[in-house]
Parts: sequence; C-alpha cells; structure tokens
Amino acid sequence: MSEPLFAPVQEGLTRLRGTLAYDGKDFYGWGIQPDKRTVQATVEHAVATVLRIDPVTVQCAGRTDAGVHARGQVVHFDIPTSTLMEMNDLVYKFNSLLPEDVAFLDLQITTPDFDARFSALARNYSYLIYLYGRNPLLRNHAHRSWLPLNVAAMQEASQRLLGLHDFAAFCRKREGATTIRTLLRFDWAETPDGLIRADVKADAFCYSMVRGLVGAVLEVGEGKRPVEWITEYLEGRARQPEIYAAPALGLTFESVEYPSADQFATRVQETLRVRDLDGTP
Amino acid sequence: MSEPLFAPVQEGLTRLRGTLAYDGKDFYGWGIQPDKRTVQATVEHAVATVLRIDPVTVQCAGRTDAGVHARGQVVHFDIPTSTLMEMNDLVYKFNSLLPEDVAFLDLQITTPDFDARFSALARNYSYLIYLYGRNPLLRNHAHRSWLPLNVAAMQEASQRLLGLHDFAAFCRKREGATTIRTLLRFDWAETPDGLIRADVKADAFCYSMVRGLVGAVLEVGEGKRPVEWITEYLEGRARQPEIYAAPALGLTFESVEYPSADQFATRVQETLRVRDLDGTP
Repeated sequence: MSEPLFAPVQEGLTRLRGTLAYDGKDFYGWGIQPDKRTVQATVEHAVATVLRIDPVTVQCAGRTDAGVHARGQVVHFDIPTSTLMEMNDLVYKFNSLLPEDVAFLDLQITTPDFDARFSALARNYSYLIYLYGRNPLLRNHAHRSWLPLNVAAMQEASQRLLGLHDFAAFCRKREGATTIRTLLRFDWAETPDGLIRADVKADAFCYSMVRGLVGAVLEVGEGKRPVEWITEYLEGRARQPEIYAAPALGLTFESVEYPSADQFATRVQETLRVRDLDGTP
Repeated sequence: MSEPLFAPVQEGLTRLRGTLAYDGKDFYGWGIQPDKRTVQATVEHAVATVLRIDPVTVQCAGRTDAGVHARGQVVHFDIPTSTLMEMNDLVYKFNSLLPEDVAFLDLQITTPDFDARFSALARNYSYLIYLYGRNPLLRNHAHRSWLPLNVAAMQEASQRLLGLHDFAAFCRKREGATTIRTLLRFDWAETPDGLIRADVKADAFCYSMVRGLVGAVLEVGEGKRPVEWITEYLEGRARQPEIYAAPALGLTFESVEYPSADQFATRVQETLRVRDLDGTP
C-alpha cells in the first residue's frame, strides 16, 4: 500500500475535518481493499451519496488494522464548496447513511492547510486486557490473558521504551517506511473494574507498532522475560518471530493531537521533511 | 409463563451455584421459548452435554428480557452426584461448549437449601445512557438519549420512589404476580467518560420494572414532567401507555445479594410467605 502524499485543497473545494468512532470488529481495517468491508470505503460511500458527488477520498490520521476500534479517529476530505452551501447538519445526514458500527462524532470546515495525517502532533491509543476466564460483555473490545500479569514489571519495561528510537523490532516491515518514532507515553494501570489498560502515545506509529509494543511488554508481564530484555529487544531492531503482535480487538485509537490552526501548514512541512530524511516517500 | 416453585435438591443430586455473564444482544432473554435462542436453553444444553445427562433445569435469580445483559446473574441447578465425582474444572468445560456471548464466571457446590431466586436478598441492575449522536462502541450496551437530561432532577425523582410500594405503574402486568416491592437504591450519576448511569437495587423486581422505572424517570430528566409527577405516577398504580419502558440494551443485571449460608432456608421461607400474602402462586 503506497503512502498518500500531502495534497492541498483544490480551487472550488472546501476542506472538512471530522472525528469518527467505529467498532472495528466487522471491518477489515481502515484502508480500502477490493471486496472487503473497510471503514474508509464505508465512509467515502456515505459522503458521496449524501452530497451526490463523485467518489471522494477521506484521509485519516492513522490507518487502523482489521479489528482495531476507534473512539477518536480524525479525518479530512474536500467537497465542492457549492454543495456545502446547500447542506446543513452534515453529521446527522452522513450518520443516517452510515451503518451502526461507524459514525461521525463531529465535523467542521477547516483551513485548506489542515491535513488529518501530516498536521498531527501525536496519536493516543489504549489497549485493554482482562484476565483468565471469559468476558462476554468485553469479548470484542479487550484481549483475554490466560496468565497472571505483573503490571509493575510491565510499567517498568514500558518506561524504558520512551523517547526517540528506531522501533523496527515492534513493527511489521513496510518497504521504504521509517520505523524511527518518538514514544511519548506508555503507561499500564489496573482499572476500577479489574481490567488492565495501557495508554500509548507517540508522534506517529508505524505499521502494527502499538500491537508490537503491547505484545513484547506482555512477555515481561507474563514473567517469560526479565524487564531488562525489553531494551535488548528494542536495540536488536529485528522482530522476533516468537513475539506476536497483541490481538487487534484490545486496541482502540483514542484521539489525535494537533497544533493550533496557524501551525497546521508548518507542521505538515516538518512532518514531510523528517520523513524525507528517513527515506520515506 | 408460570413462576417456578421452590424445589429442594433430590436424593443423589448435588446442587451447584454459579455466576453467569452474558451479552444480551443476540438472546431472546433468559427464559426458554420455542424456537428462540435464549440464555436458559443455551446454558442447559451445555451443562447436559458436558455431563452427558438428561436435560437439566437451570434456575436463575432474575429472568432478563430480550436484549438485557448480565455481569452477575446467579443460577442453581442439580446434577447427579456421581457425575460430579468424575468431573473437575467444570467452569472451563461448560464454557468450552458455550458460545462467546455467555459464560460461567464461577461455579461451586452449594447447600441443598440454596435457591438462586428465593434465597436472594436483593438484586442490582445498572442502566447506561449516552447523549445525542452515535456511539458505535457502546451502541449495544447503552441507550441513546436524543434530549439533554437533567441528572439532578432524575436523582431527586428517583429518591421519591425508594421504599416499600406497589410498583404496578412501572411493571408489565403478569397474572397473579405481586407488584409490591422494596426499592433499596435508585441513584443517577455522570460517569468519568461522559455517560449517565443509574444504579438500581430492590429486594426483587417484577416484570419489566427496572426499564419502567428508568423510562418514567427519563420523562422527568427530559423536562417533560416535574419531579413531583413521579409520586403521582407511582400512586396511580396504572402504567400509562405514553410511558414506555426504557430500551433493553441499556440494562445490565449486575449482581445478586444472598444471606450467609446458614440463612438460605430461612430466606426461602420468608420469600415464599411474603409472596403467598400477595397472592403470588
């Protein structure tokens, strides 16, 4: 899958920015795939149908894998300004056409230089785990661990991953894509209702990186590896076959952070410059 | 549907007590109905299959309607003591045969005089509401309100319903069944993640009572009726057609409270005596 390049808004079009929530269970992830039910295809279809326009491309802040949920995915797309003038209450109209497992939470006209992906400063994900047994009410939104977990050791290991690193060991390979990222937060805690929750934040994540991070730290939590191992693993920069990515269903894309509107364009240039240096197309 | 009578354990059988959780979305409620997927039929089938015995009757603490969830439904059933001797890890074995949306959380041998329904001192339910828009991640576990809700007014109205009353106005009629109950708790609060939650506790609930209570209090929360109206409505003892029961999907059966084991039999006698006085068969 090629990475979309930054595309400024065209003459006669208006750029919209929106927040989406979805239940990832019945989607084959964000990005369009032939003959698969994806979030992107579903949303693009609803937008084009409501506005009676040609297919529109909806760009997101972070493409999610099959089964991953979102509470605060951010998107942008451009629609004919003339169409916009005739419409109001677009959130309601789009949601009326969207199936029950995906919805716009908000929608606004934004500046031409806003880009859901390249203007972003940081992404927040959560990962939810329940222990043993069965949990019929959370089965599609949390991962079941069959082993007891040492949350303190997981927290300690996670802290050693913070900062600017090459996270290649935690990511699936994608030709030409950088794996250098800044991990800004990786905290583990027990929730009041007995679940174990990770909060993970980075400037950006590479392919399958959050699940790789959680999967590796679970090795420590299960007592299979000492805390120190996580640093060796990071520095090895090679994904080991025995470390599986944690299952998608425990993962939720929570939110995206952006600079103030006057910084959108600057941030896009910064993002593109950094990726150029890394060899990202 | 006739109410099951208290049945003490037979010679050669051992009584088990278990806790069940289920996602009510794809069940037609608890009680067996011809050609419908119900929790009771599903659980009874798994138990009989694992133990290779004739159909067994599983009694629950509170029969839930179609769509209602459970985090802590309590059940009892009797199995041949000889079968029990050969088996261990029954939770695991039953759950292996149960579909993903229902599971035993625990299971223990209990005393012959324990009755999931008649020994119970109190039942706890929760009701979850989100406001406006759409919520793909909670759509099957919370009710969407299209109107803003005055939580303080809802709390005030709910407090006026506490105590021993005839709750006929809030219940669906069931021939010969009493509607006199003691409402022990009915609290509303906003959760940290912006939802509105009711916690409801009574000695027992009659048919559709929690949903009737929530539906009536929502009339106050939406500003359609003053707080005082709730008392008139209670005292009218007639369900008004314009007051609908709140939707099932927001309702979760949380837990059941029992006396200590030496009080099981006494509590059963008390329960049966009170219901006799009310004319309950």
